[in-house]
Amino acid sequence: MTTKGILGIAASSGIAIAKAFRLENPELKIDRKTIQDIELEIERFEKALTKSKEELEAIRNHALKELGEDKADIFSAHLLVLNDPELINPIKEQIKSEKINAEFALNDVSTRFIDMFKAMENEYMQERAADIQDVTKRTLAHLLGVTIANPSMISEEVVIIAEDLTPSDTAQLNRKYVKGFTTDIGGRTSHSAIMARSMEIPAVVGTKTVTDDVENGALIIIDGLEGKIFVNPSEDLVKMYEDKKVAFEAQKAEWAKLLNKRTVSADGYHVELAANIGTPEDVKGVLENGAEGVGLYRTEFLYMGRTQLPTEEEQLEAYTSVLKRMTDKPVVVRTLDIGGDKELPYLNLPKEMNPFLGFRAIRLCLEMQDMFRTQLRALLRASIYGSLKIMFPMIATLDEFRKAKSILIEEKEKLQKEGIPVAENIEVGMMVEIPSSAVMADIFAREVDFFSIGTNDLIQYTLAADRMNERVSYLYQPYNPAILRLIKNVIDAAHKHGRWVGMCGEMAGDEVAIPILLGLGLDEFSMSAASILKARSQILKLSKSELEKAVQQILNMETTSEVESFVKNTFIQPKEIVI
Amino acid sequence: MTTKGILGIAASSGIAIAKAFRLENPELKIDRKTIQDIELEIERFEKALTKSKEELEAIRNHALKELGEDKADIFSAHLLVLNDPELINPIKEQIKSEKINAEFALNDVSTRFIDMFKAMENEYMQERAADIQDVTKRTLAHLLGVTIANPSMISEEVVIIAEDLTPSDTAQLNRKYVKGFTTDIGGRTSHSAIMARSMEIPAVVGTKTVTDDVENGALIIIDGLEGKIFVNPSEDLVKMYEDKKVAFEAQKAEWAKLLNKRTVSADGYHVELAANIGTPEDVKGVLENGAEGVGLYRTEFLYMGRTQLPTEEEQLEAYTSVLKRMTDKPVVVRTLDIGGDKELPYLNLPKEMNPFLGFRAIRLCLEMQDMFRTQLRALLRASIYGSLKIMFPMIATLDEFRKAKSILIEEKEKLQKEGIPVAENIEVGMMVEIPSSAVMADIFAREVDFFSIGTNDLIQYTLAADRMNERVSYLYQPYNPAILRLIKNVIDAAHKHGRWVGMCGEMAGDEVAIPILLGLGLDEFSMSAASILKARSQILKLSKSELEKAVQQILNMETTSEVESFVKNTFIQPKEIVI
Repeated sequence: MTTKGILGIAASSGIAIAKAFRLENPELKIDRKTIQDIELEIERFEKALTKSKEELEAIRNHALKELGEDKADIFSAHLLVLNDPELINPIKEQIKSEKINAEFALNDVSTRFIDMFKAMENEYMQERAADIQDVTKRTLAHLLGVTIANPSMISEEVVIIAEDLTPSDTAQLNRKYVKGFTTDIGGRTSHSAIMARSMEIPAVVGTKTVTDDVENGALIIIDGLEGKIFVNPSEDLVKMYEDKKVAFEAQKAEWAKLLNKRTVSADGYHVELAANIGTPEDVKGVLENGAEGVGLYRTEFLYMGRTQLPTEEEQLEAYTSVLKRMTDKPVVVRTLDIGGDKELPYLNLPKEMNPFLGFRAIRLCLEMQDMFRTQLRALLRASIYGSLKIMFPMIATLDEFRKAKSILIEEKEKLQKEGIPVAENIEVGMMVEIPSSAVMADIFAREVDFFSIGTNDLIQYTLAADRMNERVSYLYQPYNPAILRLIKNVIDAAHKHGRWVGMCGEMAGDEVAIPILLGLGLDEFSMSAASILKARSQILKLSKSELEKAVQQILNMETTSEVESFVKNTFIQPKEIVI
Repeated sequence: MTTKGILGIAASSGIAIAKAFRLENPELKIDRKTIQDIELEIERFEKALTKSKEELEAIRNHALKELGEDKADIFSAHLLVLNDPELINPIKEQIKSEKINAEFALNDVSTRFIDMFKAMENEYMQERAADIQDVTKRTLAHLLGVTIANPSMISEEVVIIAEDLTPSDTAQLNRKYVKGFTTDIGGRTSHSAIMARSMEIPAVVGTKTVTDDVENGALIIIDGLEGKIFVNPSEDLVKMYEDKKVAFEAQKAEWAKLLNKRTVSADGYHVELAANIGTPEDVKGVLENGAEGVGLYRTEFLYMGRTQLPTEEEQLEAYTSVLKRMTDKPVVVRTLDIGGDKELPYLNLPKEMNPFLGFRAIRLCLEMQDMFRTQLRALLRASIYGSLKIMFPMIATLDEFRKAKSILIEEKEKLQKEGIPVAENIEVGMMVEIPSSAVMADIFAREVDFFSIGTNDLIQYTLAADRMNERVSYLYQPYNPAILRLIKNVIDAAHKHGRWVGMCGEMAGDEVAIPILLGLGLDEFSMSAASILKARSQILKLSKSELEKAVQQILNMETTSEVESFVKNTFIQPKEIVI
């Protein structure tokens, strides 16, 4: 038997070696039928709903026990979908008005919702579509009398092979027996990938063909570090991967020891490692991974997947929840950054020719002041529950920063007049993600309390290349000396005025960027929670004074590739590249 | 009678005071009729075509005598339209196959072509649409037996009021009697506006309502300096405008004296004033306005309004024509800058989410190398006819510049092997219009012969604001200190390496920017030909050493408006703002 290698997307790190278990989804064949008894058909539909809800409650309890509250919340969301009159009533209406069977009506209405969410082209909405798909499938199975796969029944060590895993499939996996999984579709940020990381099950997704390539019972290696699958591996390969597995577990154990350590370079320089979050639920991962704060709380998610703006009270609840759970650790909240690739359909904004260069973030908030003021009031009211810092996104000119800050001060004074308590000394900063503000950092530094460098946008504007456009993706260059020089300019200007500088773009957690940023004097690194311990381990071994010297040389390099190979050869241990 | 003021777009400078002459276009009513005798109908259509051609030849000869060769070429283009089988054959086909009258077929086919060109959303195509509209109207009038207005018959001093002026209307204007014109529609770059400037007839276009507001014979003031119209002006207002007219003519006479002067500041520092051109026809205006060279030859127009790429020979002819007519004066040619708002339908490029951050200019040329090499060969072959310099647009990284230059060198060596002469020492430079290349100017300066700063793009990327998007137009800030600092960085880096720096964005001809740019040490200012003499007049009075000191202060200013008011108050004489 020859070994077959398959490439996919590394979704959850680790190595798994076990027999393949194919998780097949039964075909759900939906015919349109005319029915006679409308009452009976609606009763049938409601019974199927009830069964689905009972199952989901059981899965939720299982998830709560095995995975914790935030993952269990996914199933609370599923239960909400099944109780949502906006979905359920149109189905019943259609059964009545068209005299059709419940399967057809359910599938028809759900498909419309799913297509609508999918068309919104943002990740959050894609996941809402996946949720509806999941509960629709479950209910259809009950209507059709078909049994759907139940992964919780697996009782031997396997790796799961599937076209896709729904959130409920993933939540039912028993960590004792399921050593890993691999799917045809999905990406690093799909629900199943996120859950795999949370459950620490190695996973490779987006292989396109794994269900075609693997028979039930075949021996499989899943390399969740590099996104590789091997079917029917040779003995030598199995041996090699067993060694790699041991090395990875040792590495993880070493990282785990760093959980409550301060992040201090080999020569004694402390930096703060913080995490980026999108919702209050993400705080759990932040604390579990030993982050020293939240460096970026993206408030957009509060505004998404709805039909109208969130109220001040709804926002207050979310902000308070994050601040309380973070106790006295700093939480940097970014005010609404909508527009560009992040649309809010209910705002009815006109289509733009170049949305990334358009009316978004602070530009929009300064126009739609009611919306902006509501958010600021909620933040100010929450400020007494923790250590809040506020920053404004997409600041291009000093006029914009002044205008945003003056609105914040107005709202603060209004609240104080109303007798509502507000924390004193809330730090007010800005994102540096537009080249003009990086160039003008010395001027801004007189008036801001801190900067947070948003590298994703800063890179795309500085090189004039849309980071979502594959034809120019070669220009998305975090290590381009132009980017590093702008970052240096921001840090130097800030320090001259006694301000601190953070970074909340993807670059802050990047292994090659970290030594450079440490050498440049970055004060706070904010990244995905899962990267914190690895970054801490890296920084503990680096010498800041040595990096300061290296950085002088790096800033005069000519190209991205020159920088990258220099850093890799000089400051990264080969072993760390593999793992 | 009360005075009525109307605002429009200043299209051609100067003041006109005269009676209104309404140039009415007869209504051309086109009915669909079934015809019996196809041969007869086609004969009727051909007679109308012949009459139109005779008229156009007469107008062309008139234009040649009164306006010069390049304006007469517009009517050669019209004659080509009437001889174009791609337009004429489908009309005849339609008469035959549908048995319909010639008017209907002509109108139907033309409308399709016009709509197609209009849909292409670029100015050049809009003008092609206007050309077809013009000849269609003329031919329809002949078919319908209607007389169209003949502005050449005007024999008393008037200002013309019209909904719009076609190129042929404008070319027939007799400068002796027609003192100015104003229209409802049109912009600064419409054909009629361009011709008005070339004929030096004051004009205000795009008033939206002037044909509704003005009666035949009413007294009118046209202020082509500020884009204002006054109907039935008071005596005081007439007096004021007579004085303004005298001041303007005096100013123009003063500027005219500067035609063959070098551009030297009050303290003896020489800078080069060059012009931007789009076609070989523009060279006439360049020479007539005393430009010292061509600072930007936009080669896109060669590629537009066609169905396939221009051949090497076609390009050779255009480049040679420009170089020969400019004799030994420098001509900086920018290689193809397509993409973004400039589309070439026949390349079938995919739609992009953010075309301004997309696959365009050098990015596209480095991929579509056959197209790029053809242009470079044509340029190299033309190089022996004058003083050619070549620059690449949208360079973001040194890798891109090196790749583009190496392709140029390859083509040069190929030509030399083929025994085809190529000039030695062609300077090879790059546009600086992306923030990364402005930041990295010191690295680029080692390898380029010159820089040309493209401010239109540099501003939009540095402030991350689409310059075509009205909602963020407040961020299109040429005087933002961030822009000025980047320009300074480019100039200082270039001078350190003995390179020269030009500017070919709109900023180079801007009255407020000129003192700053002189102070920063810009070597070459390239602008629209019509701005050259005014800019020269301004620079002659400025002291470079004084501006160098002021610039130190300006670079530390906080906002655009601070810079603008400082320069206006310090370096611009109030009189010059008015005129």
